[in-house]
Amino acid sequence: MKNFDINEDPHRRFNPLINEWVLVSPHRAKRPWQGQNETIATEALPKYDPTCYLCPGNVRANGMNNPKYESSFVFENDFAAMKQDEIIFEEDIKHTFFKAKPEQGISRVVCFSPRHDLTLPEMEVDGIENIIRTWQKEYTDLGNIKYINHVQIFENKGSVMGCSNPHPHGQIWAQSSLPTQVEKTQNSLKSYFDKNNRTLLEDYLQAELKSGERIVIENDHFVALVPFWAIWPYETMILSKRAFGKITDFTSEETTAFAKILKQLTIKYDNLFSTSFPYSSGIHQAPTDGLKHPEWHFHMHFYPPLLRSATVKKFMVGYEMMGESQRDITPEKSAEILRQQSDVHYKSL
Amino acid sequence: MKNFDINEDPHRRFNPLINEWVLVSPHRAKRPWQGQNETIATEALPKYDPTCYLCPGNVRANGMNNPKYESSFVFENDFAAMKQDEIIFEEDIKHTFFKAKPEQGISRVVCFSPRHDLTLPEMEVDGIENIIRTWQKEYTDLGNIKYINHVQIFENKGSVMGCSNPHPHGQIWAQSSLPTQVEKTQNSLKSYFDKNNRTLLEDYLQAELKSGERIVIENDHFVALVPFWAIWPYETMILSKRAFGKITDFTSEETTAFAKILKQLTIKYDNLFSTSFPYSSGIHQAPTDGLKHPEWHFHMHFYPPLLRSATVKKFMVGYEMMGESQRDITPEKSAEILRQQSDVHYKSL
Ligand SMILES: O=P(O)(O)O[C@H]1O[C@H](CO)[C@@H](O)[C@H](O)[C@H]1O
Ligand SMILES: O=P(O)(O)O[C@H]1O[C@H](CO)[C@@H](O)[C@H](O)[C@H]1O
Repeated sequence: MKNFDINEDPHRRFNPLINEWVLVSPHRAKRPWQGQNETIATEALPKYDPTCYLCPGNVRANGMNNPKYESSFVFENDFAAMKQDEIIFEEDIKHTFFKAKPEQGISRVVCFSPRHDLTLPEMEVDGIENIIRTWQKEYTDLGNIKYINHVQIFENKGSVMGCSNPHPHGQIWAQSSLPTQVEKTQNSLKSYFDKNNRTLLEDYLQAELKSGERIVIENDHFVALVPFWAIWPYETMILSKRAFGKITDFTSEETTAFAKILKQLTIKYDNLFSTSFPYSSGIHQAPTDGLKHPEWHFHMHFYPPLLRSATVKKFMVGYEMMGESQRDITPEKSAEILRQQSDVHYKSL
Repeated sequence: MKNFDINEDPHRRFNPLINEWVLVSPHRAKRPWQGQNETIATEALPKYDPTCYLCPGNVRANGMNNPKYESSFVFENDFAAMKQDEIIFEEDIKHTFFKAKPEQGISRVVCFSPRHDLTLPEMEVDGIENIIRTWQKEYTDLGNIKYINHVQIFENKGSVMGCSNPHPHGQIWAQSSLPTQVEKTQNSLKSYFDKNNRTLLEDYLQAELKSGERIVIENDHFVALVPFWAIWPYETMILSKRAFGKITDFTSEETTAFAKILKQLTIKYDNLFSTSFPYSSGIHQAPTDGLKHPEWHFHMHFYPPLLRSATVKKFMVGYEMMGESQRDITPEKSAEILRQQSDVHYKSL
């Protein structure tokens, strides 16, 4: 019998945002890897690629021409997962097992830059500020549509994350329902706020700043940290210091500070394995259902798949799918490793 | 305005096993694919590979020798995610945000066959029956250990599912807590049983058999179907017709029938894209906490990643991670396609 050592012993941690546990196996990073290696694109990309459907002036799948845009550019996804058609539907409540509801929505693509060869960490801060303003406009415009109650802004970066085009871009899926993961978060935030009259993440951030162990970057308005309950090896979350619900609540200082922390975090990511670091990221913020949401606290998740190197990722498979998410390195260790990365991009050295 | 057509219009479906929704986009399978292709192993494997740490007689990472086993073979995982050490732990209830608990457990590897080159669909029915008896023994032995309350039997097949060795094998992770996904299922099964005095899956299966639309294979004792709420393109679930909670409840006819449906389903999977079809599979059954679990209904999940071909998978990334699972083909269509596959393995044609 020995006393519990969170840095050594297998344990479970609780995620109060979605009310789920994660299994942490601190010792397991040592096992040898004989499995699949990812291929990484190493050739330098051109600034403009005539075959890229996202580059300025080029033709997209639907035959339309992109404008010769100079900063960011937004268009409707040609193969959207949802449609805008209004659908007549009468719910059959007898159906215990076959419960289905039509879902109305809009999908858009956001090109981050006219430059085919740039990614967030390589862009200038004012270029990133410009993306933030684009996100603000989209959140407002889409949120103002009567049937849109949720606007999901996200980015899939890297082929390992299903991204089919290296041209820097993200997506926005706006829809009538709160998606599953957001609904879980909403419920947790709400019940915490109702009880404490403060946002859950405001109090969580205080606890994290006090501990310091999982902080990766802190500036005047935002903090990037590895959550205590992180699932992915180098998962991070960017939180606003001030408690507010949505990207449109940013002051102009906050816009700059957010652009800076985005750049700094993604530089650290790239430097970690000297590669263009793949991830899916996404912003979680208040629903656009017209109600006040004092419980909401703006935050952005980064879920990167890599575990040991530019080519070896963490597979969330059998046990993780059937049982629960499992990680092979502690969040504290990951935070320490990320903190130590230089703030200068490896390519510019 | 048009009437809702579940075969055409984007919609959400509800999964009553885990109380989550999935977004279904029937029209979206048509989009062109320019993203990552998986590499597939096509060289024929030898019956015995002297470098394989799972083949009979060979040496494992820890220096131990495998016996010259002739059917299946079980050993403790050398790089287990959990450990058997008893850990002293006092819960600090003041920790709202940093909630962690030690977790005790055992991980085992189950070699399905001494033959390096076989997979489930290529094995004889009696060889598969033998695996089932091994699972039964492990469920009993592990379940009898005082601190083990859950035994997760699963298989990761194919390098795309993180499997590092083609030698046919699965794993068992047994532990003191109910893993997250199982706890969700347990809660749903329990509340349904308490209300109806029948298992949720017994009634679901009746509804599915009546509809017929999503049935892939039916024999005297088991049914393989694409669940109404399936997430993965060709996800299936094998359900027992009789309501019982665990693999040790099988009659000898049920053992044979389960072996047969496993073989038939995996043959159809291989035939779908003429490839050794990757998936993660896992058995969900009653906890081993010593309590009666009349609410439990034995079932097995198959989560295969492929979408369009042997090399193009469905990426569960940005929207799926931040929002909710999304699928590009209806479960009804997938079931139809699987049903149409031959019951003779393509390699033996
Ligand atoms: O088979 P292995 O090498 O133990 O590991 C594989 O399955 C485990 C259980 O699903 C996962 O945690 C690992 O990420 C995966 O690579
Ligand atoms: O960027 P695409 O081609 O729309 O698609 C990618 O992101 C989507 C949203 O996360 C996923 O549903 C797809 O599986 C993925 O390939």
